[in-house]
Amino acid sequence: MQDRARATRRALLEAAAHLFVEQGYARTSINEISDLSGRTSGAVYFHYSSKEKLALAVVREQFAAWTLLADRYAAPGVPPLEKLVALSFDIAKALRDDVMTRAGARLWAERRTIDVAIPTPFAVWTAAVTRLLAEARADGELAEEVEPSGTAATLVCAFFGLYDLTEEMAEHEDLSDRLHRWWLLILKALQARPEPAALVARALAHHRPTPTG
Amino acid sequence: MQDRARATRRALLEAAAHLFVEQGYARTSINEISDLSGRTSGAVYFHYSSKEKLALAVVREQFAAWTLLADRYAAPGVPPLEKLVALSFDIAKALRDDVMTRAGARLWAERRTIDVAIPTPFAVWTAAVTRLLAEARADGELAEEVEPSGTAATLVCAFFGLYDLTEEMAEHEDLSDRLHRWWLLILKALQARPEPAALVARALAHHRPTPTG
Repeated sequence: MQDRARATRRALLEAAAHLFVEQGYARTSINEISDLSGRTSGAVYFHYSSKEKLALAVVREQFAAWTLLADRYAAPGVPPLEKLVALSFDIAKALRDDVMTRAGARLWAERRTIDVAIPTPFAVWTAAVTRLLAEARADGELAEEVEPSGTAATLVCAFFGLYDLTEEMAEHEDLSDRLHRWWLLILKALQARPEPAALVARALAHHRPTPTG
Repeated sequence: MQDRARATRRALLEAAAHLFVEQGYARTSINEISDLSGRTSGAVYFHYSSKEKLALAVVREQFAAWTLLADRYAAPGVPPLEKLVALSFDIAKALRDDVMTRAGARLWAERRTIDVAIPTPFAVWTAAVTRLLAEARADGELAEEVEPSGTAATLVCAFFGLYDLTEEMAEHEDLSDRLHRWWLLILKALQARPEPAALVARALAHHRPTPTG
């Protein structure tokens, strides 16, 4: 019984996420979510009580996934600036391929038109990036004048701008291309001994493990 | 008579811009625009035919102002990277103080919920930044590996991210602070002979002329 409730909640979340991505929050109705999920609209109200609450649940689902991702990059062994770069490519991939992540991003972009406060992931990301920069400082990898927390906030803002505008600019470059270019530029300023191309190559090797066996 | 029509159009534009900034596009009605402007709602329909058209007129008004601004920085005399930095602070100032600029930015942020294609300023800005970087290259000021047009797109994306998230992050830093920090970082990577602090200081001297006499 509890399993069935869990499956229903998951089906509703996924249907809602899909519709939010495709047509935005305002144009998505509870009926459409019910139709796509194969559940009744009564089930939507029973489990989430309103479209606002459902949007909030989608965003929270995305946050949980991101927290797992950030934790994965907290493990020791890989140099912190490599982790930072690899993490950014993982997020870019999720923003391209994962419906919950895409829905969260679109809801956030539409936040001003939604009657519930959409929580932002930026404080969590800024904290994670600050920690990685501080580790790089401790390892002697960070350029002297780079201050971890202010720089982390700046990097998070710039990443979001890359994401939000890359889709708008409608050129041949996708987010990964632009991110690649961005790291080659910014690592020159971040690294104590600049070697951006080599670091990005190592980070992408972590990011895309070659199949074994 | 034509002057009166022009004054009416201006009053309607300014009222609309003010309301779009304060409460967003969706929550603003033609009646409110009419009330705030002191004109009849008939005047709104006569001059702009719909709320969508009025939004479009606000965005176009902002574009015209930005084109003037970009042209101002096309004049010779000041080193191109200084112009680029000074221009960014001027835009940051307009985004803070100018109601038409703020309205344009908010309409763009809400573009997915507006039933008319909101034109984007990014191609114009990318072209302007590409030109400045190419001039810096010709003057020997740009680092060897920096490619003007791709880098320009990256800089424009990052600037927008700084703007859009700085308001959300609700810290003590405002956009000018964050922009300052951003240039100190990125100029290290852009300049052939890095001296970011000195360049930003010179750019701000252009940007904020001290009163004479």
